[in-house]
Amino acid sequence: MSELKNDRFLRALMRQPVDVTPVWMMRQAGRYLPEYKATRASAGDFLSLCKNRELACEVTLQPLERFDLDAAILFSDILTIPDAMDLGLYFAEGEGPKFRKVLRTDADVSALVVPNAATDLDYVMNAVSEIRTALSGRVPLIGFSGSPWTLATYMVEGGSSKDFRHVKKMMFATPEVMHELLDKLADSVIDYLNQQILAGAQAVQIFDTWGGVLSAEMYAEFSLKYMQKIVSGLIREADGRVVPVILFTKNGGQWLEQMAATGADALGIDWTTELADARSRVGSQVALQGNMDPCVLYASPERIRTEVKNLLANYGSGNGHVFNLGHGIHQFADPDHAKVFVDAVHEFSPQYH
Amino acid sequence: MSELKNDRFLRALMRQPVDVTPVWMMRQAGRYLPEYKATRASAGDFLSLCKNRELACEVTLQPLERFDLDAAILFSDILTIPDAMDLGLYFAEGEGPKFRKVLRTDADVSALVVPNAATDLDYVMNAVSEIRTALSGRVPLIGFSGSPWTLATYMVEGGSSKDFRHVKKMMFATPEVMHELLDKLADSVIDYLNQQILAGAQAVQIFDTWGGVLSAEMYAEFSLKYMQKIVSGLIREADGRVVPVILFTKNGGQWLEQMAATGADALGIDWTTELADARSRVGSQVALQGNMDPCVLYASPERIRTEVKNLLANYGSGNGHVFNLGHGIHQFADPDHAKVFVDAVHEFSPQYH
Repeated sequence: MSELKNDRFLRALMRQPVDVTPVWMMRQAGRYLPEYKATRASAGDFLSLCKNRELACEVTLQPLERFDLDAAILFSDILTIPDAMDLGLYFAEGEGPKFRKVLRTDADVSALVVPNAATDLDYVMNAVSEIRTALSGRVPLIGFSGSPWTLATYMVEGGSSKDFRHVKKMMFATPEVMHELLDKLADSVIDYLNQQILAGAQAVQIFDTWGGVLSAEMYAEFSLKYMQKIVSGLIREADGRVVPVILFTKNGGQWLEQMAATGADALGIDWTTELADARSRVGSQVALQGNMDPCVLYASPERIRTEVKNLLANYGSGNGHVFNLGHGIHQFADPDHAKVFVDAVHEFSPQYH
Repeated sequence: MSELKNDRFLRALMRQPVDVTPVWMMRQAGRYLPEYKATRASAGDFLSLCKNRELACEVTLQPLERFDLDAAILFSDILTIPDAMDLGLYFAEGEGPKFRKVLRTDADVSALVVPNAATDLDYVMNAVSEIRTALSGRVPLIGFSGSPWTLATYMVEGGSSKDFRHVKKMMFATPEVMHELLDKLADSVIDYLNQQILAGAQAVQIFDTWGGVLSAEMYAEFSLKYMQKIVSGLIREADGRVVPVILFTKNGGQWLEQMAATGADALGIDWTTELADARSRVGSQVALQGNMDPCVLYASPERIRTEVKNLLANYGSGNGHVFNLGHGIHQFADPDHAKVFVDAVHEFSPQYH
């Protein structure tokens, strides 16, 4: 493997000194980029793009050509695991992800088989090694997975949801069935992320997109517990370096202390939680990643720069901050504004290091 | 006006002693009740139901016939004010509210005229007095409005939204236009709620359904500031009693201290914030209303009763708790389960008073 030329991102996640604050953007390879749309059109549908190692590599690298980003993230989808469980993932145009088979009963859950990531999800591992080679040490590569709870919401609802009716019904009415499902998913995610690490991922992020729709008690029992199991089961070193683990629960700002106690290296936070507040609560236990509202990119370049300055000042001096948006960049964002954002992080952050 | 026979709800909002914890349910007059569906079918569409004083009164009272509720809430919609501003509210079947005219520019906002609630929204006031008379002192009547920020999201997006792209663009890119809009809305809400109070509302709730999609700083500037203006502009006494004001920001659990400082009498909280945590943070400044996840109603009666017990214990002994769901009851909830919920609050709460 090539030597890593820019390790700011990995150093910041481990709370080590850096020259400037590293920055990347969730969903940085995506529909806001015309070159992404062109590649996707050539692949056919979204899943075909995920499953083609050359094209997945191509779109992963596209944002690095435009922006001075400090990390690349594997181009894939959070629902690859349920797809490998034969639930029949598909994307209805304009409607988001859907499953042909929906889980509702004890029998549905019992019938699920934990996939073998190395074989059943080999296309993901192939993409990881392809990207890692293509990066040739330019920046680190992030692998990722959905959290067990988040995967379960899509599998039980059959797709996206507004009220999480079916999955919460399973959780409240038959908690033992929900625990069986989450346990299978946690085992699947451990294997999946470990295979990504073996294939070349240098950090991993667990996306708990829907943990924030739970109460504190239910979050601890049905989401955090299984992320804890994953953190404990991951390979934590590769190429002689720690492989940092980032937990990101959207709308999880009230539970940062509990998240930090899992042994994760860093927490992703969205804009509803202040960086300064989060930092004072988690102390030196974990690094923080975030948290500009992606909608700021709709404002003027000057306003974007002001917001970056404010957020850097809000975190303050010292180690342990990875700049990011608080959620994925929107498809309608202007790429030139994304560039203003990324550059501003590097321009204004040296004084804090 | 008839003497109030059950004033637990008003007493709890003022943190005065009660015999049992009062309870009501957000959206208690709604589609989960077959009798509601029947009345609505006879009215035609949803807006016609809101605009018919007899039918609005009928559906407001329906849940009181089934359940031992401690308050009634005016049957209406949060979007009556923008409708009175001539934006052309309509409800597309299965798609939620929509506006024929959408606000996007400075000129759109400048052209808006603050409605005269007594005349332009007389159908709401007629419903309030009709309901108040029909209640004849059985329980207090709650009036309500959407918050300025929440109303603005619908007016600028043209309906419901997932990413709040247009309204946040206005907020970040042209904050002065957004402030002009919010100021007009705050003035409209003050007049609207004061007219409801004059017509007979005995408490009022401000629904800030979408304040929780903002950062702490933006929430203070674009949502809370205008709710503060409303609280300061409201008539706070009627029939020789205080008219309590309840602020409810969904997903606003991180900002309870700031909300309590507005001078509101009570804060609504959703299930993502623990009652005990909220109570320790707001102290004796305000009462708390909430916070069972409406999805608990999908569980067994025994599980519902356990959850009620847990939440009562979580709040603990003493005054200042109004039991409620953390959000509106779902259309798929079983009315028999709602009854189990309401009865459990009264059955298990005497020990805390």
